[in-house]
Amino acid sequence: MTYSELSSQIFQKQSYLCVGLDTDPRKIPTHLLTEKDPVLAFNKAIIDATADFAVAYKPNIAFYEAQGPRGWESLQRTLECIPADCFTIADAKRGDIGNTSDLYARTFFEPTAAGLSFDSVTVAPYMGHDSVTPFLAYEGKWVILLALTSNPGSADFQRQAVDDQALFETIIETAQTWAGPDKLMFVVGATQAKELGRIRALAPKNFLLVPGVGAQGGSLADVSRYGLTADGGLLVNASRSILYASTGTDFTQQARAEAKRMQQEMKRYLGEM
Amino acid sequence: MTYSELSSQIFQKQSYLCVGLDTDPRKIPTHLLTEKDPVLAFNKAIIDATADFAVAYKPNIAFYEAQGPRGWESLQRTLECIPADCFTIADAKRGDIGNTSDLYARTFFEPTAAGLSFDSVTVAPYMGHDSVTPFLAYEGKWVILLALTSNPGSADFQRQAVDDQALFETIIETAQTWAGPDKLMFVVGATQAKELGRIRALAPKNFLLVPGVGAQGGSLADVSRYGLTADGGLLVNASRSILYASTGTDFTQQARAEAKRMQQEMKRYLGEM
Repeated sequence: MTYSELSSQIFQKQSYLCVGLDTDPRKIPTHLLTEKDPVLAFNKAIIDATADFAVAYKPNIAFYEAQGPRGWESLQRTLECIPADCFTIADAKRGDIGNTSDLYARTFFEPTAAGLSFDSVTVAPYMGHDSVTPFLAYEGKWVILLALTSNPGSADFQRQAVDDQALFETIIETAQTWAGPDKLMFVVGATQAKELGRIRALAPKNFLLVPGVGAQGGSLADVSRYGLTADGGLLVNASRSILYASTGTDFTQQARAEAKRMQQEMKRYLGEM
Repeated sequence: MTYSELSSQIFQKQSYLCVGLDTDPRKIPTHLLTEKDPVLAFNKAIIDATADFAVAYKPNIAFYEAQGPRGWESLQRTLECIPADCFTIADAKRGDIGNTSDLYARTFFEPTAAGLSFDSVTVAPYMGHDSVTPFLAYEGKWVILLALTSNPGSADFQRQAVDDQALFETIIETAQTWAGPDKLMFVVGATQAKELGRIRALAPKNFLLVPGVGAQGGSLADVSRYGLTADGGLLVNASRSILYASTGTDFTQQARAEAKRMQQEMKRYLGEM
């Protein structure tokens, strides 16, 4: 999906909601456990219930990998359930030396490799340019680079002072020499809203993928105030608050209601721009 | 495997060789391609040929993931072929927020999850303490944290000056507040031998996993001079130089010969201590 297509989707749906498909088999409503593939049945139901209000879906790969080979099969089938007008993110946080990152890129981008064709992959920056550029070689595919994450450990190294700025700022500046905003996004946690203004100044056109609204405590209002651009420029992720809005037979209705509630709030912020 | 067991293995075998099972299906000798699982057949042959000279095996997970579900099955079966007295490393370079790193730890450590039970996992440090500590919760299992990697991109961020030292030095110091040398190793590229002395001073007891000898150009002599300790303290990885020593029907003999050549050199360095 291109930059302008993603931007169009946001204004068309009046939403920058990304639904995180962090599906934990231990939390699936019990009535689905008799399905042949409960994870797939759950994901399909969530996608169908939320697709009117979401512009992106983001399976976190750890949840599938922890199920072994059948988890990878659930992931393949889940990806097939996501409508073509939605942006897809493999939240994998990969990164290795060049020839190995090339294999990770094949895994998530090249359907003939692992049966997957995501629009984007999250990548860890620590190993530098040759760990990231193999992902950029794919036409129409994106890298979403970790910058300032939502977790407590983000304070350990990401905020270390390098010259007169924080390490995450150096990473945002350096990565922009590798690719333009048409192929490069950054992960910025919603719990870090007070830094969003500075990050937006460093990366005025790049989309930001923002996890941490909801269960982790970030504020959608703050994120939107500092992060929205004329092109949209934001993908705000919610996982647990949508997936597990109910654990009963009404889980699709409750997931849809929560996705709609977030979309309505986003619509307001888009209107105020 | 415990610290003292690993140390014992090194002195018993007179070797600190780790064989990197970075098996690329496109490079497997053609006579194996008729096997039901050519990757497994190749790995089993390499393991059988080199186990007298190696103390550790390290599959890089990217090579298996790029094959989809059947790649994970090859990985499961490969792990079963590694002798119990060898240390096993899942070279996965994972790391995510706490509850997600916990799933990655389950994947590689908990046999009932993904059918895998490695002794250790390589972990990326960028997301800080709560991305690493879930791996440390497993009794007898290890974290191998990226410090100074072997690739050109290691210069981009790992060497950034933080106060009066490099970022990788800050990471080595900080990580030692999370775990002792009985559960924590560091990755240091063999191409970075001139820093090994400083790293050894910062982490006098920790094992160092050293990739980059062979195809990437690092020197075993330099690595051994600066890295060896009274407990061994080193695992030096070789992948391509052993796996693809020959691409013909004599690949096992040539792999064995190359592993033996490295072991003999290591024996000399252990004797010179």
